[in-house]
Amino acid sequence: MRRTTGWRSFDPASNALTRVTLDRRDLRPDDIAVRIDYCGVCHSDLHRIHGLLGEKNLVPGHEATGVVVATGEKATRFCTGDRVAIGTIVDSCGACAMCRAGQENYCHEGPTTTYGGTDRIDGTPTLGAYSREYVLRETFAFRLPDALDAAAAAPLLCAGISVWEPLRAAGTGPGHRVAVAGLGGLGHLAVKFAAALGAEVTVLSRGAAKEKDALRLGAAGLIVTTDEAQVAAARGRFDLVLDTISAGHDLAPLLGMLGLDGTLCVLGNPLMDAPKLFELVTGRKKLTASGTGGLRQTAEMLAFCAEHGITADVEVLPSSRVETALDRLAAGDVRYRFVLDMSDLDHSDR
Amino acid sequence: MRRTTGWRSFDPASNALTRVTLDRRDLRPDDIAVRIDYCGVCHSDLHRIHGLLGEKNLVPGHEATGVVVATGEKATRFCTGDRVAIGTIVDSCGACAMCRAGQENYCHEGPTTTYGGTDRIDGTPTLGAYSREYVLRETFAFRLPDALDAAAAAPLLCAGISVWEPLRAAGTGPGHRVAVAGLGGLGHLAVKFAAALGAEVTVLSRGAAKEKDALRLGAAGLIVTTDEAQVAAARGRFDLVLDTISAGHDLAPLLGMLGLDGTLCVLGNPLMDAPKLFELVTGRKKLTASGTGGLRQTAEMLAFCAEHGITADVEVLPSSRVETALDRLAAGDVRYRFVLDMSDLDHSDR
Repeated sequence: MRRTTGWRSFDPASNALTRVTLDRRDLRPDDIAVRIDYCGVCHSDLHRIHGLLGEKNLVPGHEATGVVVATGEKATRFCTGDRVAIGTIVDSCGACAMCRAGQENYCHEGPTTTYGGTDRIDGTPTLGAYSREYVLRETFAFRLPDALDAAAAAPLLCAGISVWEPLRAAGTGPGHRVAVAGLGGLGHLAVKFAAALGAEVTVLSRGAAKEKDALRLGAAGLIVTTDEAQVAAARGRFDLVLDTISAGHDLAPLLGMLGLDGTLCVLGNPLMDAPKLFELVTGRKKLTASGTGGLRQTAEMLAFCAEHGITADVEVLPSSRVETALDRLAAGDVRYRFVLDMSDLDHSDR
Repeated sequence: MRRTTGWRSFDPASNALTRVTLDRRDLRPDDIAVRIDYCGVCHSDLHRIHGLLGEKNLVPGHEATGVVVATGEKATRFCTGDRVAIGTIVDSCGACAMCRAGQENYCHEGPTTTYGGTDRIDGTPTLGAYSREYVLRETFAFRLPDALDAAAAAPLLCAGISVWEPLRAAGTGPGHRVAVAGLGGLGHLAVKFAAALGAEVTVLSRGAAKEKDALRLGAAGLIVTTDEAQVAAARGRFDLVLDTISAGHDLAPLLGMLGLDGTLCVLGNPLMDAPKLFELVTGRKKLTASGTGGLRQTAEMLAFCAEHGITADVEVLPSSRVETALDRLAAGDVRYRFVLDMSDLDHSDR
């Protein structure tokens, strides 16, 4: 076993994690070991620490960047010292239609999630990247392009790919009008991506406070969704609305802003009730949802980010301040993603 | 006023309609008067007779074919004697984004429906095509191609266009795999259209009874949806599922048969509850609904039907037997559309 250190949740009622010693498996032939330098703090970490999926004693974290420190005897993609990234999944069946289509995230058997999952070979629970080392099949690691800052790139691995895939699936490009509802971790990357893909981007927000940021990120404008006149004026305007709002909310105003054959993609809160089917009839609107991404498109996204100079806007905290990050994330006090610096785990005292 | 005869519903608890005298407006400059020869019996006629939209004293009927018998002084598209068809709408605002896009059916002001609507000029209720004559703006009438039988073409105007538009919106063509759930008025035309468009078509039905018909209509096969093994074997198989089932039913098996980025289009019963959003996540599935069609695509559909020799499979009854038609439609005893022959309305006795 390989001994490392990480942050573990023992109390679903609290954002306080405990620094613990963790064991990683000895490398299998196709494994690599990665020194985790940075890990983003995802809204789903918060939900799952609080018991959304009934898990216990989680080590969260699935937006990680780091450096390869050891390779299995048959690993060929990476060498020691390579910069890599790790996302939300670390294995899949490899044989089903979804895996064959490069959408391992939708593996019919269920992909192995980076934390809170079960290793397909030894049956042990997977422990996430709020830790100093991670061991995984090299197939599921990504080369981190030199052009990308390792801290600011970490959130691309969940927040980024979660908005990249639906943007690409909708054919986003020049001439498209895309609205991004909610300007948080996912939303701010969606604005950057959609703008870089050539679309006209509008941010939908409950207030005007983020307008300046929206424009800086690449949006053409911001619509205040509590202003009925602004919402009415935007009737039928968008080809795609990406809904990244994590709180429950009414989808009707978002549907109303879709044009003919437009798509509302719900990313932030897929546990909400769907609208009634008849609300989709007028304009033949499409409702969809999406979850993270597959290997091929994640690699494409990283290359696109390197080409266009895109990373997340992050606030980096030492990993010992994870509770602060989670508290502030829960309060919506983040622009736009917390990233934990794991180097403090090298020190024996906190 | 122009005096004509038709069939009117006075009792929402009954399928018995009453033969009545009706007044049609004197022709406006851009109007035509049409002698209705045939009118299809649509499931929505049944629902609305039974008070679905709270209407009273309806004259139903919105799948009509006939011959122009008079033209307004500024009507230029048609001459007396021309064969024409009338569908579900007879006017719209003409100015909104949907009208400009050729989707008058989704007019932001609401299109004027062929029956149960309100004329935009004189405010009178519109009376449908279960009658011997209809008067409408010529813009909203369609030329009936010579190649099409007038009786068998009538159902194209609602059942046909209702499936044509979502098939076209989904880009149906060679290489596509389309499933049609429910083999009734809409479903049997969807099979014919999708097959003629080059797709591989599968019928989804609760039993195997319609398999022979499905193959005759152009399907490659039939899946019995009550057979769990057949449903499981079809997991992820289709690009598009057109759901034409009018009764309430579970959408989960239909979603399960969609492949990556596949679309479930609900046509038969948009009053059903939608599935939960999270059911769409795996495979990034799209849920949509659609309602009839616009002028441009209706004309395109009629031209396609003429080219490919497509009409509905109909059972023609004299209009005096409308109650029988409605009773049998309610019981599901129709293959695949009743069409009323209106010529018996010329006789003074029933």
